[in-house]
Amino acid sequence: MSAPVDLVEVWRGDMRESIHQGHAVICDAGGDIVQAWGDPAAMIYPRSSCKMIQALPLIESGAAAAFGLTPAQLALACASHRGAVIHTAPVNAWLDDLGLNDDDFCCGPQEPRDVADRNALIRAGKAPCRVHNNCSGKHAGFLTLTKHLGAGPEYVDIAHPVQMACKAAFEETTQEDSPCYGIDGCSAPNHASTVHGLARAMAFFAAAGGRSDVRSKAAASLVQAMVTFPELIAGETGACTELMRAMGGKVAIKTGAEGVFVAIIPEKKLGIALKIADGATRASECAIAAILVKLGVLDVNHPAAKARMLAPVANWDGLVTGRIRPTAALT
Amino acid sequence: MSAPVDLVEVWRGDMRESIHQGHAVICDAGGDIVQAWGDPAAMIYPRSSCKMIQALPLIESGAAAAFGLTPAQLALACASHRGAVIHTAPVNAWLDDLGLNDDDFCCGPQEPRDVADRNALIRAGKAPCRVHNNCSGKHAGFLTLTKHLGAGPEYVDIAHPVQMACKAAFEETTQEDSPCYGIDGCSAPNHASTVHGLARAMAFFAAAGGRSDVRSKAAASLVQAMVTFPELIAGETGACTELMRAMGGKVAIKTGAEGVFVAIIPEKKLGIALKIADGATRASECAIAAILVKLGVLDVNHPAAKARMLAPVANWDGLVTGRIRPTAALT
Repeated sequence: MSAPVDLVEVWRGDMRESIHQGHAVICDAGGDIVQAWGDPAAMIYPRSSCKMIQALPLIESGAAAAFGLTPAQLALACASHRGAVIHTAPVNAWLDDLGLNDDDFCCGPQEPRDVADRNALIRAGKAPCRVHNNCSGKHAGFLTLTKHLGAGPEYVDIAHPVQMACKAAFEETTQEDSPCYGIDGCSAPNHASTVHGLARAMAFFAAAGGRSDVRSKAAASLVQAMVTFPELIAGETGACTELMRAMGGKVAIKTGAEGVFVAIIPEKKLGIALKIADGATRASECAIAAILVKLGVLDVNHPAAKARMLAPVANWDGLVTGRIRPTAALT
Repeated sequence: MSAPVDLVEVWRGDMRESIHQGHAVICDAGGDIVQAWGDPAAMIYPRSSCKMIQALPLIESGAAAAFGLTPAQLALACASHRGAVIHTAPVNAWLDDLGLNDDDFCCGPQEPRDVADRNALIRAGKAPCRVHNNCSGKHAGFLTLTKHLGAGPEYVDIAHPVQMACKAAFEETTQEDSPCYGIDGCSAPNHASTVHGLARAMAFFAAAGGRSDVRSKAAASLVQAMVTFPELIAGETGACTELMRAMGGKVAIKTGAEGVFVAIIPEKKLGIALKIADGATRASECAIAAILVKLGVLDVNHPAAKARMLAPVANWDGLVTGRIRPTAALT
């Protein structure tokens, strides 16, 4: 097991103030490592970065077709959204279609990260609902599958048919037996894998368009949904949204809590997974942008790339006091 | 130069999810290292952890006495507050006393971290002011010294008499020549030192009560102000506030951005400084609590200690999904 390596540094004035280490793997469709940093065998929780894997059973089961889910709904099932109205309105409509309401969600209420819609909620004197949870689209997918299967309401239980299907999809696409799981921020189980395993799963998604089996077709439709609706994945200003737009729909990317980021590159049939050892999102965003630039799929001069790779640290008065940037290992 | 060492780990379920490394030094009144982790010579920006040093010139110059500043005002000068009314009301009154207003502050407007008072501001349709900046108490001190010296309004300029006095106090208490400075979140210069140097300065404060020179008397009065008004230093729920209360006024502690924390222990004439290499506050809070427990000045069973040292990671639905805790190095 090798140690994590320096991936991202934070500068203030002429001195490096903080440093982020991590592990990263670029994997091909055969499951082999193309390039790696740190320890490919490091065991991690993918957190929200594996939502597209958790959405596979929704399609494979026939539930998505039976309920007529749109590509926008599939994108929401893969999203870590900002609780903005552009997210909560369609998720609420989806709940209506299912004949369910906010109380049927197992994810807890979360204050919207979208500042304008958060402030509107506060001005209206309303508390955040479960639909505002950044995972509510994934949970709408879980509820859809639950209904399709005629299963019980406790759909986040590890032994629930929905979670058993998610675990199977996770282990089959990572091609690993997951040694353990944790409970995620939204109360759903989150299965551990190596960084290599997570990258292998992303490579499966990347190469899915060239195959015609049920799982591959499901994977390809999820990738297409993600790149078609980047604003549903992470909301305006979100790294996933802005970077997917910058890549013009050619690459699907997804963040996960505690410093995880993944990418799916169909044109190269490559998958990427990375974990910042200390869990910092500012670093995972910088590192994924740097690797995408390195692979030639993201323009280093695009504002969305520069905002992550040479991110100005601005203080409360708007003064630029430093920069966040990738280390030499990533450039 | 030695590498940072593992200080704090974040667990989810049965697996360690993230890890924080850092440097820490416990220093005695003679400036010698009592115990250290990582590299005592690591160069850092103290950020807000050195506000009590930046407040020394305010007292030494005679400005505090001339303007009749109270211990509560001295505490506010050392604070990184939450922009709650208990902070902004006295700072605004202080501005009034100086015949100045919000526009005279050089710190930028910041949304209050106190949720209730933040929401009140949003409901009133008001934008945050400069007084809401967590450093506004320090800036009120800067303005007081500026007025006392008859100096110009640009009091955050590196060549302004206020900042020259702050730099001298910093270099004299750390007993180091600072190699560089950065611009802090509040636009004031922040001078770099080693972790050892910052701990040495804290030991100077810790032993100040036993000396009668002007600087030592100033230092002792600032320590007394901090421990007397913990709620002015960090607001309710803040780590500085809760941990200082838990130690019953015997220890002054102060957080700084990017994972810095310091402590002043008069009864032992010891100073502590630590820096989490990746800049995480959750880790600096855990590490300082662990060291204070180790030194016997903080009860490991006090709720405020347990909240940092065995901090439950709760998700949006209130489920405990993991723990933040110190590594074996700190226990």
